Order: sequence, then C-alpha cells, then structure tokens
Amino acid sequence: MAPEMTTLKGQPLNRTAVDTLMRRRFFYTPTADIYGGVAGFYDFGPPGCALQANIVETWRKHFVLEEDMLEVDSPMITPFPVLKTSGHVERFCDFVAKDSENGEILRADHVVEEVLEARLKGDKEARGQKVEAAAEDGAADKKKKKKVKGKVEAIKLDDAVVQEYTEILAKIDNYDGPGLSELFEKYDIRNPNTGNKFKMPVYEQNLMFDVTIGGARLPAYLRPETAQGQFLNFSKLLEFNQQKMPFASAQIGKSGRNEIAPRSGLLRVREFLMAEIEHYVDPESGKKHTRFHEVEDVKINLLDGKVQLEGKTETTAITIGEGVRTGVIDNETVGYFMARIQLFMLRLGLDPAKIRFREHMENEMAHYARYCVDCELLTSYGWIECVGCADRSAYDLSCHTKATGVPLVVRETRQEPLTITEYVAETTKAKFGPRFKQDGKAVQSAIDQLTEEVKEKLSLELKDNGKITIAVPGVGDGKVELTSDLIKIEQQTRTEHTREFIPNVIEPSFGIGRIFYSLCEQVFWTREGAEERAVLSFPPAIAPTKVLLVPLSSNPDFKPMIAELTKKLRKHHLSSRVDDSGASIGKRYSRNDELGTPFGITVDFQSLKDNTITLRDRDSTDQVRATQDEILEALVKLVHGTETWSQVYERLPKFEGQELE
Amino acid sequence: MAPEMTTLKGQPLNRTAVDTLMRRRFFYTPTADIYGGVAGFYDFGPPGCALQANIVETWRKHFVLEEDMLEVDSPMITPFPVLKTSGHVERFCDFVAKDSENGEILRADHVVEEVLEARLKGDKEARGQKVEAAAEDGAADKKKKKKVKGKVEAIKLDDAVVQEYTEILAKIDNYDGPGLSELFEKYDIRNPNTGNKFKMPVYEQNLMFDVTIGGARLPAYLRPETAQGQFLNFSKLLEFNQQKMPFASAQIGKSGRNEIAPRSGLLRVREFLMAEIEHYVDPESGKKHTRFHEVEDVKINLLDGKVQLEGKTETTAITIGEGVRTGVIDNETVGYFMARIQLFMLRLGLDPAKIRFREHMENEMAHYARYCVDCELLTSYGWIECVGCADRSAYDLSCHTKATGVPLVVRETRQEPLTITEYVAETTKAKFGPRFKQDGKAVQSAIDQLTEEVKEKLSLELKDNGKITIAVPGVGDGKVELTSDLIKIEQQTRTEHTREFIPNVIEPSFGIGRIFYSLCEQVFWTREGAEERAVLSFPPAIAPTKVLLVPLSSNPDFKPMIAELTKKLRKHHLSSRVDDSGASIGKRYSRNDELGTPFGITVDFQSLKDNTITLRDRDSTDQVRATQDEILEALVKLVHGTETWSQVYERLPKFEGQELE
Repeated sequence: MAPEMTTLKGQPLNRTAVDTLMRRRFFYTPTADIYGGVAGFYDFGPPGCALQANIVETWRKHFVLEEDMLEVDSPMITPFPVLKTSGHVERFCDFVAKDSENGEILRADHVVEEVLEARLKGDKEARGQKVEAAAEDGAADKKKKKKVKGKVEAIKLDDAVVQEYTEILAKIDNYDGPGLSELFEKYDIRNPNTGNKFKMPVYEQNLMFDVTIGGARLPAYLRPETAQGQFLNFSKLLEFNQQKMPFASAQIGKSGRNEIAPRSGLLRVREFLMAEIEHYVDPESGKKHTRFHEVEDVKINLLDGKVQLEGKTETTAITIGEGVRTGVIDNETVGYFMARIQLFMLRLGLDPAKIRFREHMENEMAHYARYCVDCELLTSYGWIECVGCADRSAYDLSCHTKATGVPLVVRETRQEPLTITEYVAETTKAKFGPRFKQDGKAVQSAIDQLTEEVKEKLSLELKDNGKITIAVPGVGDGKVELTSDLIKIEQQTRTEHTREFIPNVIEPSFGIGRIFYSLCEQVFWTREGAEERAVLSFPPAIAPTKVLLVPLSSNPDFKPMIAELTKKLRKHHLSSRVDDSGASIGKRYSRNDELGTPFGITVDFQSLKDNTITLRDRDSTDQVRATQDEILEALVKLVHGTETWSQVYERLPKFEGQELE
Repeated sequence: MAPEMTTLKGQPLNRTAVDTLMRRRFFYTPTADIYGGVAGFYDFGPPGCALQANIVETWRKHFVLEEDMLEVDSPMITPFPVLKTSGHVERFCDFVAKDSENGEILRADHVVEEVLEARLKGDKEARGQKVEAAAEDGAADKKKKKKVKGKVEAIKLDDAVVQEYTEILAKIDNYDGPGLSELFEKYDIRNPNTGNKFKMPVYEQNLMFDVTIGGARLPAYLRPETAQGQFLNFSKLLEFNQQKMPFASAQIGKSGRNEIAPRSGLLRVREFLMAEIEHYVDPESGKKHTRFHEVEDVKINLLDGKVQLEGKTETTAITIGEGVRTGVIDNETVGYFMARIQLFMLRLGLDPAKIRFREHMENEMAHYARYCVDCELLTSYGWIECVGCADRSAYDLSCHTKATGVPLVVRETRQEPLTITEYVAETTKAKFGPRFKQDGKAVQSAIDQLTEEVKEKLSLELKDNGKITIAVPGVGDGKVELTSDLIKIEQQTRTEHTREFIPNVIEPSFGIGRIFYSLCEQVFWTREGAEERAVLSFPPAIAPTKVLLVPLSSNPDFKPMIAELTKKLRKHHLSSRVDDSGASIGKRYSRNDELGTPFGITVDFQSLKDNTITLRDRDSTDQVRATQDEILEALVKLVHGTETWSQVYERLPKFEGQELE
C-alpha cells in the first residue's frame, strides 16, 4: 500500500480539506452540478484556469520551445479507420466484471484492489493497529464510497494471506483477463456494493466515446490520445523540419475516455487535457540522445519492473546516467526524457520525495509499447500515473503505412552508396497472368514472401530441372509448379544511394489534470495551530495570481494608487487581483493564501505620503516596506525566479506590521 | 453578391494560390488525409498552431486581461438536460432538403443560394459581362463543386427576375421553413448535383453530435457553444467576483457542429475553436457601459437589418457613438463590444475596408437572442460571419433556474429599503388540503397566478359574500368556489432590503478558425511581376515566427553566432527559426515570406569580424546593418509595436546587399 500522504510541513493530509477548499474557491467544480453532475466531468473556474494555463505554458517552454518541437493541433473527433489501424478499436479496453444479480458493471482490477485493501484494513483493525483515516471521495461518488467503507470488517487474516494480498496488490496492473478471473474465484471477490458474485470470466470493454459524422453517419471516435494526429502528419512534419532527423512533434489538447465508473475526482475523468510529445529517432542510432550529457546527473526514484513482479514496491534513488549505464533504463532517449520530466515536476513545485518513476511490467504495457515507464506522483489516493513515457518503436507509423499505402518513412542520402547483391524472382507478366488467372495474386504473394535462402535453393533447382514447386495456400492442392518460362530467379547486384527507414517513437505523454490535482495536494498545508488557515504554496511562476493588492480600507483615497499599481503590474505581465472588501487585512491575506497568491501589497496612509508600499510573502508571512519601484523590481525577479524571498527580505527594510485577524 | 476579393496590394485574390500555399507550408491540412480525410475536419501544422496561439493570446490580452474577465474551462461533452433546457435540442437545427430520387440531404438555404447565384452568373455571361473566376474549393469538396460549376448556363434572365434573385440573396438568412419551401417551388430549384427535384417541405435537422456516457449510456452532446458552461457556473462566478456586478466570464475551447455538408475549407468545420464572452448586466441599468466613452469614436461599417429586409446590402460608415445615439445600435454595452471587436480585428492585421458589422434580421436570430449583430470579414467566399455579438437577455439564466430550481440570480442590498404594499392570498393549509385533495396543487397554482388587480377585486368580494369563484382549468367544471375559511386575501405591506434579479447577458462569440482563415486571405499578396513569390503580411505580434536566422552558407564557422542569436532571441521571447539549407539567401527569405516571418537576420563573414548583422523587413525587403545588440533592441521594439520599420530604417545604417535568387 502507498505511504500515508503528508503535507509539505509533515502534517497528515486531510483530503476533504483540500477538496473542499478547491471547490469553495472555484479551482474546479463538477460539470453541470446544478443538474446533479455526471461522474468524471469537471469545470475549471478562474483560479483553476489560470493554474492550468501556467502548467501548460511551463510545459510548452520546458519541452516545445527548448527543443524546437513542431506543434500540431488536430480535432478530437477521429475517423474510425485511423483508430482501427492503430489498434485502439480492438485493444483500448478495460477488463470489467458484471454483477450476476443486478447487472452492474465495474472495472475488474479496481474491484479486486478495493476488496483486498478492505480486508487488509480489517485485519489491521483486528490486530489493533492504526488504520489510516478512510479517504473521502468527490461528491459524485460519495454514496458508493460510503458503502464500500462500510464493508471493512475487523477480521484477522493469516500472516500468509496478508503476504499474498500484499503481493497481488503490488502487481495488480500485471494481471490479464484469465489472471483477474482467477483472483475473483480464488478469493471469492464479490461486488462490494451488493455482496453479489460476479459473472465470470471478466471481459473487455472499449473505452472510446463513439460519434457519427454527417448525414452519411460515418463512424468516428473521440480520440483517446493526441498521438495519432501527430503520426498521421509524420511526412509533412519531416518536410517542415527540412528532412532533418531526429526531431519531435507535440500536441496539447483534449481527449476522451469513457471510463467504466470514474471516481477519484480529477484523477480519473472522462474528458481531459493531455500534452504529448512524439520524438522520432533512427532505430539504428541505438536511441542515443545528443543532449544526454546535460541530464546525466539528474536524480530520480526508480521502481523497477522486476521488483514489482516479486511483489515488492521499493524504489531505488539513482541518477539517470547510472540507470542507462547499468541497463535499468532502456535507452538514452527514454532516460533523457525521464530526466526532463523530473526537472519539469520540480519546476512546478512538486516534492522530489513524492515523485517516482515506475517501470511497466510485461502484461501491463499498452498494445503499442515495447517499453514504458510512468512518472507517478504521490497523493492521498496513493501513487498516481501522471506521465507515461513509452517506446512505441515503429508500431504506429508502420500500421498506418500498411493501411494507407502512404509511406511514413525517412529517406536519407547514404554517405557511401550501399551495394546489395541478392536473389530476385521475376515472373514473365505476359504468360504468368493467363496461366494463373484469378489465382495470380496469391501465387505472386507467395513468391514475394520467399526468403533469400529459399530463393538461392530454388534458383539452382530451376536451372537444373527447368521447374520448381512452391507452396501457395488456398490454390489447388496448396502447391504450384512454375516452369522457367514463367519465372526467373537470379542473383542481381544493385546500388542504393538512399536509405529508407521507419523511425522509432519515444513518447512522453502528460495528463495535465492529474498533475494539476497532485500538485494542489502536494503544496497544501495549514498554518500552525490554525487548521482553518490553509495555504497553497505554488511557486510564484505557477501560481494563478501573482500579486494581491490590498488597500488598508475602502477609503476612496487609495483607489488611484491601486489602479496605478494594477496598470504597472500588467505592464510587467504580472497578474494581480484587488481585494478592497471590508474584511481585515489579515483575513484578506488569508483568503488569498487559499488561492496560492505568493505576494501581497498593502497600500496605507503612509503610501500616499511617501510612495512606499509593503510586500508580504505568503509562505513566511514576512513583510518588507520600500518604494513602489523597488517593490515592483523585486516582484519581477521573484516571479521570474532570479531572486528568492530570503534575498529580498535581506536587502529591503523589514516591515513589522501586524496581520490583524 | 459580395464584392470581388482583392489582396492588400489591390491584386485580384487567387483563392487556389492561398489555399495551396497554406497547405504546402503546413498551416493546415485535412485531418487524416492519408486516409482520404473527412469533410469539415482540419489539422493545424506548426505555423498554423503558432498563428492560432497568437490570435488566442491577443484575444486573451485584449478582452480577458484588459477587463478582468473570469475564465472558465468546461468539457465539450455536455449532459443532455443542459442542452434540452437551453433549447438546443429542439432548436439548434438547419433546414434541409432531401433529393426525391437518391435521398441526398443538403442544407436548404445553401442550395437556394447556389442555384440562384449560378443563374445570375449565367445571365451575366449571356449579357457578355465579366464573370468572376469560379472559386476553387478545398480538396474534400472539389468534386461536388466542379459539378455545380458545370451548371452555370449562359441564359439571359428578365431584368425583373435578376432583381428578384438579388433581393432574395440579400435576405437569404431571414427565410424560415415555409419561406424556403416556397422558394424551391416558385423557382423550380433542383439538386445541382443530380438535377432531381427535392421532397417538399424542407425540414429541420439537429446539428449536435450525440454521444453516450458510461455503462448507463447517459445521453449527452458535444457542446455547440462554450456559453452554457459559463451560465451553469453563474452563481460561483458571481461569488468569485465578490458579488460585484457587472462582470464578464470568458471561455476559450472547442465546440462541435455536425454540419450537413461542409464546404468552404476552414470556414465551415465540424470541430472548431471558439472564444466566448458572457457579459452580465443589470437589466435596469439600461445596458449602459462605464467605459463606453473610451470607444465612442471608433469607426465601423454597419449593415442595418432594415436595409437587408429591403433587399439591399449597402453599409454605412459610422462611429459607435453615433450608432448608439441614433438607436441604430441597440445599446451601449453591445456598442462597446462592437468597438472592441473592431479594434481587435485591426490589431490582428485585418483591413478596415474588409470588416463590417451586419445586424441580424428578425427570423435569422438564434432562439436565445433578442438582438444580434455579426462582425463579418471579407474573403473570396464573400462576407463571412466571424464574431456574433448577441443580446441573450435573461434567456439562459432563466431557463436553467426554472429547470433546476437553483436560482441563478443577483442579490443586491438596496440603498434604500423598498416598501411594497400588495394583495396577498393565503390559504388555510389545515382545511385547504382535505377539501381539494389531489386537485389542491392545481387550485393553489391558479391562486398564485392571480394578478394584483384581480386579487383586489376578489378581496372585496370575499369580504362582501364570504366566498369567491376562480377559474381552475381541469378541475370540476373549470370553476372552483372558495369560502373565507379556506382563503384570506388582504393588502399587506412589507419592506425589501435586498433586490433580486436575473442579469441580462451580452455575448460576443468568436470563431477563431474563421478569423484565422480570413486573416490569411487578407494579408496574402504576391511580389510585383513574380506571382510565385507570395507573402503573408501578418503584423509582427501575430506572425507565427518573428525572426528568420540565415547564415550566409552552411560553413560551420557561422554556427556559434547563430546559436548565440537563437538563445538571445528566446530570452526576449521572440520565436525564431534557422534556415541553414544550401538554398540562396534570396530563396530562403522567399520561403519565409510565405510563412509570414516579418524579419530576417543574415550572418556573414563580416559578422564574424565586427559582430554586425543585417536585418531585413519582409514587406519592403529593405535591410539595415548594425551590431547584434542594436538589431536585437530594434526587434523587440518592432514586435512589441513601439517602433515601426520605417523608424528603424531611418535611424540604422542601410544595407544594400542583393537578394540573390
């Protein structure tokens, strides 16, 4: 089980307090909640929009601009053939189990987790151990969750059973359909909502929303990922990049997944913002990365796939360089992006102790991936996958090339022309067609599939006997005789001046909403001795609003200076918000601590006399007092990260004014 | 018919040239075009993404930040009840006509336009007048369009008929179903693709994409506008705004419209980016706007609704102030936004002569609007609606309040308490219920609907006769007798300290894709005497890339300075692109003129000696030469709009280097 979630001050995290704050201050709210809402859909309000925009903007700067990635924007509605080819129609599914009595459909792995975790909790209770406070869920799911929580019964388990359950939970993502069905049978896992058994075996259900287009009702889906819109444009992107390899494309956009029974608030939603990078590399390059040396020393926490298969969840702290050198990390390019992801998370203000990279186990990987490692963030829901970093190899580009006949390939002029000597089988068109008629295609296909070795053997046979026999399934008795007037097989030599290859793709794929929520939990804390005074300690660059402007009172004399400051801050691209309500200054600051506003400016009567204002730091509540220009200069540096608060506090005159409640 | 479209140099605009350029340079491409594409879906490539992002960013600064609007982000997938209440399920439809033979379904008004315009063209040909070059359409629609073009037959029409057709076309948007059906009959309008008649009458078809959510298959739609996501959150937004009125919310996001048969490329797509503002005003304020005086003098071209109903399309050039004073423009708030829209369009680089505001005619308005004026941009497709500015009155907030029972209202403390004296009818609960049983609700409802006047009359009657009779449809014989033990009707006086009202909404709604495409047509031109040398003259702030970096040759000695310049430009937030290909400098500049890159820097051997570089202006092709720092300083000013090219050209040393082809 995941470690208990604490705040950055080490306090136990109260999820309800976070969730209530976020809703009350309109970071987010269930979509259409005046209509009762629908699970898995959320709206962002003004601070949520600003926070999301800042995360996206940071992402764009950190990845797209830093590496000149080529951005693409394709629609959510995606024609059927695209997702048929990509394998999503057949394979983008979850295993579900159906209640044998009321027909309720639940996600199979989630049910197993829920039931076994409840039993382990019951065991702890029976042993008189401390049980974590049961986590509260979002409003939409409250009812169901309560029922489940009711199922925790204080029953002591055998030590061996505890061990078994723990190991199953550690590798829950690795079970396939039969494996899950077996768990249901073996451990008598029933629907926690009804107590009924499930119909077995579990089965797959597709997760895409389907729509139809126009009067002709063309079938289509809401895309489950933005990646396909990039792959389909590969050739145009390569041309735009003046045929240079390697390069990356990127897309920021919404996708849809028709989750079976979404709970866990913003962490499992049905429509969500993604940011995806497709980095195209030459497979013969060994997936080296030219900028790898820049990130070799970045430290990460890694949870190895093999460790998980042993039923354990211990992470190792290593540098990216070590990981790649020792082969724990698959290749340089994946390692490079893991390091860049780690740096991105730190830039957003996430706690390094609450970030880990978890390798996928064999059965867990998506159908298109040959290797995958997730960046997971610790929350009160446990470790949550927020970024998937997959090696999709040549899977997608090959599939689409095959399905459309349009080659999604790279053609490179060879430094040295390549001389190839090989056996070539050529049929005599004029005779071949009339001889085989409708079977011609099948025979030709069988010829095309002959290996070099076989062709060499047949070439000799043809020379010796004037005829050969090849296997052609479905034609005659499955064997076809070819005489030398119908086919020639000879060794030929040709020179290739260009090399053609399908690139491999390394894909870091970010769930922005999950990062958003995990960040909010990780920067939440409460003032000592005042649980109701919550703070969201976003880094200044990420905070929704940078500066709160507080006139001492609603006295109209303060208005001109507040207006002037607003204008000046806007000119420096620093977002600000005025609170000229009647509440005390302390209360007004507190309200904005909840919004994560890092700095506050107070305008008082002295300001009107000598043009000085006070600047307050959200986290320490320390204040300095200086002229407007000095404060503005400090603010620009603080938000751009070129100066820290302690440096500002050191060099500007301290202000000891009280924060009156 | 719309005036002929010309470039900003007065050349006739060749739509094919624009479209070919935009696709070739990957501004956009049909979605999934390697699969043959689907009409009405487009992907944006890297320059298209950057252009779109710059338009959105400019929009956000011009509207959202300038007026502290509250941003919201809600999902595209919208539960059924929301759009049922808003009226979209019943009324968000187009009139369509069905081919009587092959069942093809076409948009009725578009068919009428197409057929009548073809006849007018045929008439012009017959009269030997110049006929505009037939416009080419996007690939997806080429086939159909060609057929239609084939239908233009040189047949002279009576002058009266020409007049009739012209008048019909001027008010085509004002016809309702019966009106359209009548046109089909009267003018024998047939399917231009088949020559068949249509089944009459025309009928309505809903334009929303429907989806279902989860295992329970809850009905939902892809939203047709972002507005509803704002209205549903009205109370939360008002609270976030500390209960202050008026204020505005805004949303930037994608919407879907399942268009019947989309043609016209980016101008009519099925999934598109919108930017919508909902400005909430007190209906008793007369829709005044406090910043109206700032925009009074902004000049616009206005096409009056009444003028169109007369079958004419002449615009009047007026200031917004005049428009509101004379009542041509409905109210100050609408006028304020019209002016702000005009200023926004100018900021994007649109030509004031190719912007007009067209008032909606009565039948044309969306079901929720009581007044509407569109900002239209001139393109080769004619005048295109790019912004709708509607007065939605209290329509949406009232509907949702009624449907959910959640009051979406403003409550204001009255400056002076309001004393209200009125007749109040109170029933005696204990006797009323048993007396009327299941009819109780109907009787109570009839009582609640009594007017003040009637209540006064009944009060006297009750006093005089001890009983009254009121009409209750559906109960007994439709009349019910109430005795004074069942009801009391008396005059009462109460004092109201708060005022409660549903705000009215003024909504400027922007189609970003349409603005994008119209802008590209309006800034496109070709160098004199060199039709193949196309230029897109985006203003520097809007251009996808700001600076092209050109080393004189691929000599590696230039690389360090190019890298240094890239880094410096990035630090100043100026996007740049390097072209170090083997092509001549002139060719490289030309290629980037096509991308609309406003400035080019050349690094040559002299640069390596004295650190000077040249700066080239896209539009004039003039160049200056100065030190790196001087050029960078000029670039920052040019892109931020604080200096013009002619000022830079005046003050820095001219460079007379040739642009070699």
